[in-house]
Amino acid sequence: MRTQVVIIGSGPSGLLLGQLLHRRGIDAVIIDRVSRDYILGRVRAGVLEEGMVRMMQEAGASARLESEGLPHDGFSLAFDGRDHRINLHQLTGGKRVMVYGQTEVTRDLMDCREAAGATTIYEAANVQPHDFDGENPYVTYEKDGATHRIDCDFIAGCDGFHGVSRKSVPEKSIKEFEKVYPFGWLGILAEVPPVSHELIYANHPRGFALCSMRSTTRSRYYVQCPLDDKVEDWSDDRFWDEIRRRLPAQHAEAMVTGPSFEKSIAPLRSFVTEPMRFGRLFLAGDAAHIVPPTGAKGLNLAASDVHYLSQGLIEYYTDKSSAGIDAYSAKALSRVWKAVRFSWWMTTMMHRFPDTGDFGQRIQEAELDYLVHSKAASTSLAENYVGLPY
Amino acid sequence: MRTQVVIIGSGPSGLLLGQLLHRRGIDAVIIDRVSRDYILGRVRAGVLEEGMVRMMQEAGASARLESEGLPHDGFSLAFDGRDHRINLHQLTGGKRVMVYGQTEVTRDLMDCREAAGATTIYEAANVQPHDFDGENPYVTYEKDGATHRIDCDFIAGCDGFHGVSRKSVPEKSIKEFEKVYPFGWLGILAEVPPVSHELIYANHPRGFALCSMRSTTRSRYYVQCPLDDKVEDWSDDRFWDEIRRRLPAQHAEAMVTGPSFEKSIAPLRSFVTEPMRFGRLFLAGDAAHIVPPTGAKGLNLAASDVHYLSQGLIEYYTDKSSAGIDAYSAKALSRVWKAVRFSWWMTTMMHRFPDTGDFGQRIQEAELDYLVHSKAASTSLAENYVGLPY
Repeated sequence: MRTQVVIIGSGPSGLLLGQLLHRRGIDAVIIDRVSRDYILGRVRAGVLEEGMVRMMQEAGASARLESEGLPHDGFSLAFDGRDHRINLHQLTGGKRVMVYGQTEVTRDLMDCREAAGATTIYEAANVQPHDFDGENPYVTYEKDGATHRIDCDFIAGCDGFHGVSRKSVPEKSIKEFEKVYPFGWLGILAEVPPVSHELIYANHPRGFALCSMRSTTRSRYYVQCPLDDKVEDWSDDRFWDEIRRRLPAQHAEAMVTGPSFEKSIAPLRSFVTEPMRFGRLFLAGDAAHIVPPTGAKGLNLAASDVHYLSQGLIEYYTDKSSAGIDAYSAKALSRVWKAVRFSWWMTTMMHRFPDTGDFGQRIQEAELDYLVHSKAASTSLAENYVGLPY
Repeated sequence: MRTQVVIIGSGPSGLLLGQLLHRRGIDAVIIDRVSRDYILGRVRAGVLEEGMVRMMQEAGASARLESEGLPHDGFSLAFDGRDHRINLHQLTGGKRVMVYGQTEVTRDLMDCREAAGATTIYEAANVQPHDFDGENPYVTYEKDGATHRIDCDFIAGCDGFHGVSRKSVPEKSIKEFEKVYPFGWLGILAEVPPVSHELIYANHPRGFALCSMRSTTRSRYYVQCPLDDKVEDWSDDRFWDEIRRRLPAQHAEAMVTGPSFEKSIAPLRSFVTEPMRFGRLFLAGDAAHIVPPTGAKGLNLAASDVHYLSQGLIEYYTDKSSAGIDAYSAKALSRVWKAVRFSWWMTTMMHRFPDTGDFGQRIQEAELDYLVHSKAASTSLAENYVGLPY
């Protein structure tokens, strides 16, 4: 088989890239090692920047997002028993974010791809990119007892942190930057109305808490927990008691509780790969970088990578110019590092760290107090939260 | 002897407080364990916020500062081989800072005090505040072979980090917050024109550097160094080589070098005491808090403490109201923590930390890159640098 671009990974970055290329007449095949249903079974957050919403529009995949997504004009910072609203809309001159689950983004893009009749190969074993340092790269995989080969011009590695794409790059060609945080997030999903119609990020001496939602009837709540805690340690009752202790009284009292139907503990990590291009292989999204969930940048960063990469590839095929793909790594990384910085900062400001003690707690409270009372600092927070320009 | 307020410590905070009280007819005696010349021999930085300049005017001690001080409308942030100016004047709607040595501030205040004929007792041994938890506090000291006692209404502890005032408070009544940084500043004074007419704060993988000045012909330069380095390890040549390596090329090439006439290594520390009032004893300035020198907040924070304290005492004596002195600790601490936060942040962003590695360096460069290109973030930096409102 031959195609122009092989996209490894059928998550939101691979699908979005595929869709943007398809609409400009560029042929791409998507390969994934797992099944469509497996991908749609993953629970992921979803706070979309306007840039990401715009890309979903460009991809022709925004209809459901526009009718079912919840536009948010602000969020709350809670600390020291108080609650302060960050008015994103006002601080950014009219911008907002859209709450819409990543799983739904993925589903919408899959539906579009199916409607367009583009090729996606699921449950492909031993996917492997080859010869991307030369002019004639190809990808092999195994399926139905046979080994298959797809020749192509370019390979897009959109296969996440554990994917094969980044691992195929020789160690000497790649530099990795990492920070592992000394705590995790215990998250639950429950069929209860959210305590607030906007997100609440809470700093508390007992640890961070986040009140989020999937819809007006389904809540997604989190509490910071030690990394070695097990889900079994956390009964629903213990979870509800703990999150209420970390919230200002008015929220703790108003919170509707109920049985959880999903409960999991996730570690927090910052990770960046440099560069993001290796000859004819490009990394995009989680394959190249991971951010902690604080500030919800992961999916949006995948989208900005896909923006630069799709533009570069479209330029290559329509204008016969390599300028865009040559600039891809530097452009993407400049925005990646700013979002990694923002996620690191918000994580650092909002969580209890085992080694910073009472001084660290006071510094956080002083920073939050300054932040909510300074227009400049609130604006800086807001412009990062809604997304820096591409 | 009897007076209204005994001020322990004849540094800038004690002198400024004494002068502000004197001008409102409140009688104060200043006691210091060392001599006038010893105090004036200490080398200290001096970047004054407008609030501090205003207080020097209110104290009637601003004449020389206004004629000899160097007003600065901006400073530079250097990183990644580039140099970016922070235009303080523009970003803050017309504010600026004044470069004028702390030693000169002290001298001017001492001269005013002498001219006013107010009592200062130098070289007082074993200064000790007593009974400040009751209605009749007093201070004892030894001089010329005798023990002396001064009865008073209030005691102001302006005697610095190592002073007796804070140490006289029972441990159970005080909470201390501290962070010690894992590096020091090696500073030199040299009779050479400054490399720039404004300060340059430089982030470099080899460590922080600061180009500052005392006058148009005298430079004050610093480089971050390991805490266990000795001054003897650093020849002038080694210092000049090192600072040039940490600066963008145009500054490294333009730097005029020459023999240093002062060279010292200072550790960096953040420290805060809560509360700042204990009955009839008030702490102000370094007696209550220490900040690292990055951002030059130490002296300015002493001035804002003195602002709140002098107002409280004036209110007490003129309006017979305790409201001001009752609010002193909370008001002062709110501003203290914001400046401690700012100094901690600027220190964290500008220095190489032994434990954050290459990830930390990239985060700093991403933060600096964002900072100099975002109007909101630059404004936030500028409003802190020129001083948050009292």
